[in-house]
Amino acid sequence: MGLRGTTEIELSQANGHVLREDLQADRDLPPFNRSTFDGVAISSTAFKNGSQTFSIKGTALAGSPRMKLASSADCLEIMTGAPLPEGADCVVKIEDLKIANGEATVLDPDQAELGHGVHEQGSDCRRGETLLKAGSVITPKEIAVAASIGKATLQVSNSPRIAIIATGDELVPVDSIPEPHQIRRSNDLALASALQAAGYANTTRLHLDDNLEKIEASVSKLLGSEDVLILAGGVSKGKRDFLPEVLVNQGVDRKFQWVSQRPGKPLWFGTFNREQHDYPVFALPGNPVSCFTCLHRYVLPALDKWLGKRKGFPVYAQLQEEMAFHPPLTLFLPTHLRSEKTGANLATPVPFNTSGDLVSVAKTDGFIELPRDRTHFDKGEAFRFYPWIV
Amino acid sequence: MGLRGTTEIELSQANGHVLREDLQADRDLPPFNRSTFDGVAISSTAFKNGSQTFSIKGTALAGSPRMKLASSADCLEIMTGAPLPEGADCVVKIEDLKIANGEATVLDPDQAELGHGVHEQGSDCRRGETLLKAGSVITPKEIAVAASIGKATLQVSNSPRIAIIATGDELVPVDSIPEPHQIRRSNDLALASALQAAGYANTTRLHLDDNLEKIEASVSKLLGSEDVLILAGGVSKGKRDFLPEVLVNQGVDRKFQWVSQRPGKPLWFGTFNREQHDYPVFALPGNPVSCFTCLHRYVLPALDKWLGKRKGFPVYAQLQEEMAFHPPLTLFLPTHLRSEKTGANLATPVPFNTSGDLVSVAKTDGFIELPRDRTHFDKGEAFRFYPWIV
Repeated sequence: MGLRGTTEIELSQANGHVLREDLQADRDLPPFNRSTFDGVAISSTAFKNGSQTFSIKGTALAGSPRMKLASSADCLEIMTGAPLPEGADCVVKIEDLKIANGEATVLDPDQAELGHGVHEQGSDCRRGETLLKAGSVITPKEIAVAASIGKATLQVSNSPRIAIIATGDELVPVDSIPEPHQIRRSNDLALASALQAAGYANTTRLHLDDNLEKIEASVSKLLGSEDVLILAGGVSKGKRDFLPEVLVNQGVDRKFQWVSQRPGKPLWFGTFNREQHDYPVFALPGNPVSCFTCLHRYVLPALDKWLGKRKGFPVYAQLQEEMAFHPPLTLFLPTHLRSEKTGANLATPVPFNTSGDLVSVAKTDGFIELPRDRTHFDKGEAFRFYPWIV
Repeated sequence: MGLRGTTEIELSQANGHVLREDLQADRDLPPFNRSTFDGVAISSTAFKNGSQTFSIKGTALAGSPRMKLASSADCLEIMTGAPLPEGADCVVKIEDLKIANGEATVLDPDQAELGHGVHEQGSDCRRGETLLKAGSVITPKEIAVAASIGKATLQVSNSPRIAIIATGDELVPVDSIPEPHQIRRSNDLALASALQAAGYANTTRLHLDDNLEKIEASVSKLLGSEDVLILAGGVSKGKRDFLPEVLVNQGVDRKFQWVSQRPGKPLWFGTFNREQHDYPVFALPGNPVSCFTCLHRYVLPALDKWLGKRKGFPVYAQLQEEMAFHPPLTLFLPTHLRSEKTGANLATPVPFNTSGDLVSVAKTDGFIELPRDRTHFDKGEAFRFYPWIV
């Protein structure tokens, strides 16, 4: 497929992007033996040899250069995050000390062992170690790691240019009052929002009437400029379902249609070659539930794979009602999802019309996939669960 | 708490916001008896009375006004999404028909029953029905519902103004080369990214040295203008840990500190009253793992509650290793999360230093909470799991 370009962005803007470089530690982490307590830094050898009381010679602060114990009879007060002084190898917590007359006495011998209270240099990672790999999806914790190694900007995948085209004479704008036979455009907005939430914000939305010439002209133009086309509606067998014909006429290589599934049977997928690169074209059914389901089951996984995103893990959930479904179709069944105190995911179907009952579907958390080679599904059986993007 | 204000935003920008109005259906959904197939619309009564073949009188298209069957001997071709014609009460799918010589013959009597192929007016919801309630978090599916009922703009909660203040002399900017005893600022960036991902994008970040006067001046100013203060570092018992004192001196009402937990024991929480409203002040430990954990366990749930967000469901996961932990502290243990094919969530701990090993924690998916009144935790036992925000 085309579109493997990268772009450089500010670290603070990187959330949700796909990293396109390996990130190495530029120094050991922690970069020095770091105190993990507020306490005193001593030599554990001196303590083992019988010293219990140490003369306090100063204070080691976080952000100050490393200090030094002049003698093993001495100690330094030390604050969390401060470098362990030269000559010290242990930090005794303030609670485990008696401090009086400029001296610190260790109260609990177990708290004065070698390495106690020390976050050792290089124990998290060594200089040069790869901390994040290309293909990682950047989330806040990756941002924290990148910041700690000085990456103020990151190389990330270019966000693909995605055109979302809703088709259908019956569609009117959201802010208009429809005639009784009309409905408002919701698919393009739902698709754009879900794509944005999934990290694909570079979208444009448009609407086309069921007019063969206009659809041809628009599709032709979009195939010349966009990286991804997602069409909604006009893809089935109706008299005004021009898309399959138009797409093939415009040179899109049809890969599949008529997957044995409900909802979403009319789903059409092809690729378009432009300057030696293939670009994906998805034509989704216009039924809002089908459209939204196919986005999650096909479009988002395909885009993630295309961008080389490291995959999240698949989720499985236990069906909470016995089900029978006889048509030889894979069934995508919207369900609530809950997590039991036993750690089990429970998927509870809600009553809905597969014909397009978006209102009921909006109350669910995602859908389970019931395989097409079976007709009966037991209560308690687990199936793959696809969460709606939030 | 203060800040209950609302603001109006474009529907396309609403993802992640909290709805502050109930949304009602402005008409029945579907608004008309809608064909769910491409086929022919007939009278099921005529079919039951013996007619199998109907004369095709035209085509009902999606987006065209409702048509009419002049006689029960007639039928109309009908496309998916078109209004069912007056006089028809059933749609027979194209696959279940023979069409020849301007006539359609029904092949399968089971497919010609009353209501077949009809998505009935009002079956998804009735006009006036409340579809989304105030407090709902808006996600793409809610956007689809709002679009379908003509809400081009929505009333949503004002995003709170959040100041994130990293403190500590040891901190240097991300793009600088630190001295050996210095580290780069990562907490403020991690907090801001996580807050943004959780729907709290209205943040400012700043850094303060461990200087009592400067901290007092800054905190005083911020308490006068911001809705939420989140401080990181300087909150424990060290000599330069000025924050608890400063916050109390500036009139912040301390609610709690020293929760028996690891990591995060120094966590400090208070509220500040300004013009008869209370505003939250969180002071988080500076250790990156503590800071990030406390954000997820305290700050995000508190903000969600404050904004009146309807809660998501708690997740539980089964610990995959026997664990012993003796200190009388609640343990927040970073783990991988996987979902087994049985539907069970599995939480696998990764080796890490509680002292601040962000690199290891960045490889995990979240943390489980092991209660403080126990010391041994069995393999397979389930505990509450908190996912890292992505």
